[in-house]
Amino acid sequence: MTAGEPLALFDECTAVRPCGAEGVWDVELRDEFTIVNGHPNGGYLLALLGRAAVAAVGEPDRHVISATASYVAPPAVGPATVRTEVQRRGRTASQVRTVLVQDDTPRVDVLMLVGALDSEPPLWGDVAAPTLPDEETCQAASLARRSPITGGEPPMAKVVSLAFDPATLGWAAGEPGGQGEMRAWLRFADDRPFDPLALLLAVDALPPATFEVAMTGWVPTLSLTAYIRARPAAGPLRVRFRVGVIAGGRADETCEVWDSAARLVAQSTQLAAIRMP
Amino acid sequence: MTAGEPLALFDECTAVRPCGAEGVWDVELRDEFTIVNGHPNGGYLLALLGRAAVAAVGEPDRHVISATASYVAPPAVGPATVRTEVQRRGRTASQVRTVLVQDDTPRVDVLMLVGALDSEPPLWGDVAAPTLPDEETCQAASLARRSPITGGEPPMAKVVSLAFDPATLGWAAGEPGGQGEMRAWLRFADDRPFDPLALLLAVDALPPATFEVAMTGWVPTLSLTAYIRARPAAGPLRVRFRVGVIAGGRADETCEVWDSAARLVAQSTQLAAIRMP
Repeated sequence: MTAGEPLALFDECTAVRPCGAEGVWDVELRDEFTIVNGHPNGGYLLALLGRAAVAAVGEPDRHVISATASYVAPPAVGPATVRTEVQRRGRTASQVRTVLVQDDTPRVDVLMLVGALDSEPPLWGDVAAPTLPDEETCQAASLARRSPITGGEPPMAKVVSLAFDPATLGWAAGEPGGQGEMRAWLRFADDRPFDPLALLLAVDALPPATFEVAMTGWVPTLSLTAYIRARPAAGPLRVRFRVGVIAGGRADETCEVWDSAARLVAQSTQLAAIRMP
Repeated sequence: MTAGEPLALFDECTAVRPCGAEGVWDVELRDEFTIVNGHPNGGYLLALLGRAAVAAVGEPDRHVISATASYVAPPAVGPATVRTEVQRRGRTASQVRTVLVQDDTPRVDVLMLVGALDSEPPLWGDVAAPTLPDEETCQAASLARRSPITGGEPPMAKVVSLAFDPATLGWAAGEPGGQGEMRAWLRFADDRPFDPLALLLAVDALPPATFEVAMTGWVPTLSLTAYIRARPAAGPLRVRFRVGVIAGGRADETCEVWDSAARLVAQSTQLAAIRMP
């Protein structure tokens, strides 16, 4: 980014400003990244807190490597504070705790690891990228549907473009496919390239994968853990979001993200609360 | 447990005593649950902190449902303090942060969810339990090997019995099988039954699954996330521990735990640091 160039919307909406007190940052939770009921998206909050964590460590070439969020209470759009605490500075990575506070109440508590990240291929193991119809086909199929759950598009759908594999779009017509899996192309509407920070948004950008099992009310995330594995190549991401087991009022969901070079760049797992019909 | 009955070793070693200050507990990290270099096992620490979290919530019929630990610095055997903070009390679950402190330094920081847990079968989805040779066969094969990494059995091997599938024991002879997967029967040596709390030990009780990829030095856990999904039936557990991808000096490892009724009762994922040869 060169001086004077306007910030991409994602960067503008995840900006953190030192408020004067050591490790405390002022932020503004923006309407553009809200989903149902005006709640900011969980991945958006994770990215915003990730930016504060990297700023707190003070080494700009470091990135969030892992992040686990406990969603204590949903924050609202508007001003908020981020408290950061560098728990340990390490040679290869530092541990940072960040807490999003609004009205003197902790809303999201995140433990993060901030360290170096390369884009080298794996030394061992791989998770093959799913085969999806091309992005245009997925985009056309997605535009032809509207989620009956959200009563139309949430604000975030205007700034983050999700083009779903038509084979995993049953939920959008109120007829879950039954496989408990969604696959989609993901890009920013303004084509901002993905960097490691934006991958924190990508791991929680899809609707609940449980919608492909059953049409329920909202499925709030209780705990979300993300690992960022590599710097992504330019171009749209591919995302797979799957339900594991629904039991005892809770579901585990796994998300995997590949870049345009089919490299696995991020993974997440979350536990969410669900009321089955 | 009836009054006067002696505590099982696991309960004795995970005991938490109120120290007088609100939400602060005295604990003793015990040698019996150490692994290499005298370090307490990560799952043992998670269980000990889980006991403090349940005590802090003060509802004895509640259990740890999810826990994410950031291993900030390795603690040593001996006295330590646990600080608990109930962040939010909910009707179905409460969020609790626990921090293990030793020498005024935070060692392990854990975000937990404490709530109700049943033993009903899943409403949707399942992860089939692996087929293992019977426990006796696995036990005999395991006893015939000694890990060249640890230079013999770590203290925890005396109190937690791991009977490995012989097909996944290459590492113990210094010849990794290359599949990046271990499978084992797990029980306490004193046959203490598993309850939800002890499942927090079970999700991190095996050696690094990466040992079945490459013989390396120790593979320290950076971040570990565990979900407890059901109350386990009596009898030994079956555990599968698998490597996902090794890249950029880090490995993700997934653990799944089934009870004697082949019910998936716990899951975990962790990110660990690894130096490949």
